[in-house]
Amino acid sequence: MFEHQLASRATGLKPSAVRELLKHSKLPGVISLGGGIPAPELFDNEGIQLAVQQVMASQFQEAMQYSLSEGYPPLRQAIADICRARGVACDASQVYITSGSQQSLDIVARTLLNPGDVVVVERPTYLAALQVFQLAQANIQSVDTDEDGMLVEQLADLVQTSPVKVVYLVPTFGNPGGKTLSEPRRRRLVELAKQHGFIIVEDDPYGEISFTDERPQPLYQHAMALGCTDQVIYTSTFSKILAPGMRVGWLVMPEWLANKAIIVKQATDLHTSTLSQQITAQYLSLNRLPAQIALIREDYRKKCETLASALEAKLGDHLAFSRPKGGMFLWAHFRYPFNATEWLKKTLENRVVFVPGEAFYNDAPDVTTLRLSYSTVSHEGLVEAVDRLAKSL
Amino acid sequence: MFEHQLASRATGLKPSAVRELLKHSKLPGVISLGGGIPAPELFDNEGIQLAVQQVMASQFQEAMQYSLSEGYPPLRQAIADICRARGVACDASQVYITSGSQQSLDIVARTLLNPGDVVVVERPTYLAALQVFQLAQANIQSVDTDEDGMLVEQLADLVQTSPVKVVYLVPTFGNPGGKTLSEPRRRRLVELAKQHGFIIVEDDPYGEISFTDERPQPLYQHAMALGCTDQVIYTSTFSKILAPGMRVGWLVMPEWLANKAIIVKQATDLHTSTLSQQITAQYLSLNRLPAQIALIREDYRKKCETLASALEAKLGDHLAFSRPKGGMFLWAHFRYPFNATEWLKKTLENRVVFVPGEAFYNDAPDVTTLRLSYSTVSHEGLVEAVDRLAKSL
Repeated sequence: MFEHQLASRATGLKPSAVRELLKHSKLPGVISLGGGIPAPELFDNEGIQLAVQQVMASQFQEAMQYSLSEGYPPLRQAIADICRARGVACDASQVYITSGSQQSLDIVARTLLNPGDVVVVERPTYLAALQVFQLAQANIQSVDTDEDGMLVEQLADLVQTSPVKVVYLVPTFGNPGGKTLSEPRRRRLVELAKQHGFIIVEDDPYGEISFTDERPQPLYQHAMALGCTDQVIYTSTFSKILAPGMRVGWLVMPEWLANKAIIVKQATDLHTSTLSQQITAQYLSLNRLPAQIALIREDYRKKCETLASALEAKLGDHLAFSRPKGGMFLWAHFRYPFNATEWLKKTLENRVVFVPGEAFYNDAPDVTTLRLSYSTVSHEGLVEAVDRLAKSL
Repeated sequence: MFEHQLASRATGLKPSAVRELLKHSKLPGVISLGGGIPAPELFDNEGIQLAVQQVMASQFQEAMQYSLSEGYPPLRQAIADICRARGVACDASQVYITSGSQQSLDIVARTLLNPGDVVVVERPTYLAALQVFQLAQANIQSVDTDEDGMLVEQLADLVQTSPVKVVYLVPTFGNPGGKTLSEPRRRRLVELAKQHGFIIVEDDPYGEISFTDERPQPLYQHAMALGCTDQVIYTSTFSKILAPGMRVGWLVMPEWLANKAIIVKQATDLHTSTLSQQITAQYLSLNRLPAQIALIREDYRKKCETLASALEAKLGDHLAFSRPKGGMFLWAHFRYPFNATEWLKKTLENRVVFVPGEAFYNDAPDVTTLRLSYSTVSHEGLVEAVDRLAKSL
């Protein structure tokens, strides 16, 4: 639901049009490929219920009380273990709990950036990150992407002429593009950071949701090899692999940044919900997360396949795209000049919703693009959605 | 615990000294009059457990999912009812859920303030508000207080010479001063706002925790009478009357501000924990909050009386203070030149902790002042704490 808010605002639609859109998307029968939200029927009802019961039974007063801005210590420890398994070899003392990835980005931006500082993002990029950098009054510059993610050589040119302070990217199964940065580019990006002294913000909400057994090395891991982890900020979240409603994410930060960032976190909300943190820690101690991730990977993989196949069959002459290897999004573009934002009004009449791609550009939007999310729609729904899209042409 | 963090940072103690202080305060046997935290044994275990069970049983998927930035609609409605009972006659559409009062202030500051804007606070004032306004790079100015709260005539002089944009205050049972702004001053303050066009931020976390049946009218209510509610932002929280660990607070904002503030809220953390919001809404529907507030009022009233009486008996020649009529804090000052921050090191040796008053000043700190919190200490503990303070002189 909130993704519609975001997208509609980002596309510049007026509040009345937003409300109209929301009204439509709530009507029974509308199929939404718009929201970047996880499938609620996959939430681990049994496991989360158990964790909640255990917290409420044995940690009630603690769960209801104020807690440390840095986060609940057992959760920081459990997350450090998760990070290490991903190749982000950090200690619990480097893990800081946030109220989701969105807050991670906001805290980093507020801590690091002064007005006018140059922040480089991908073209296209996660639109809520754009909002954060805009709020920080950064000078946002974009670097193009292709099938292998950010064109790092374009960045190499940019740093020659521009005092780049921060490079922000979602290197694995990105939002909205669904692309993964190749290993050679990962290494080159980190080398550039070391050489030119900029900071990399590695946003990794989807890395675990892989449809294959391939696992790219985190940028953080490359930075370890090159001895420059002081220049990499890693952020991730439980929103896509456990549940977003509890708002629990985290930052792995170098000490020089953490000392300042924790003061910003404190001023922001004192600390993340103690209850959410304790439930999450308790859940992790049940050791059910690996099975839960496997379930999500398999479910989204099948849905993605359904959507991609239907699009190829029904809209292959109109839309071009590459099949995602993980994550929640399929990014497509029209094969000819076409305004996807205008088209949305028409597809709404046929009761199917997506997010126009232009929302995800800081500049020079490609209006032929669109983002289709498959995570919350059934097999039949996805097939029907593509039929409706085809009818809208 | 976090209050020690805050206080220590605000007093300029180094991280090592902070850790030392935290270490001391965690030692068994240390009595803390430092933390501004509610008494955990008063949390409504039965009621909250019931609310949690009901949410987990019947709203599981919704509670775990993303939700609207504005807040969970039934909670917004329930809060509007609470507000109306307090004299803040607002509609649910004017209520915006935040992750606690701290976030309310941060969102307001980020939405309203540009660097250099003049913000007036009380001397002394809530120190985490100072942090927020400092982060916003505001030009912070202070107005003195006496037994009846802010010296509004001093403000009237200030607005003649200074382009005041925002006046921030905790008008009822303030933190740290424990003072309540008198009715004539409330009216005069709102008149000044109307006349000079500044915004009032009315922070009301403690208003319900009254030790008498007197209830001052909210500034918002005065603004209604004067037809200028567009200039008053009202914020409150469940932290002191229900439980802080869930991080649920709210803002009542005029529409012109809300439209911008909601974009900031979105960029900050998308939305407040859905789970926390639904538990809070469910709890409110049980209609147990009035009894809970009555319990807290009576408990804190007794503790306050114990502390005040012990201080008068044992330290009356050294400390001057007036008895709080509500809230969680007793504000005192030495009758002679004395540095309370220095004294803290000595009282720590005798294993009793408080917050030195100088932390709460934006400028010209009165180092003879100190804040004593009684909410979490037993009757015997309070008597013993005062003995230890007396021994430390």
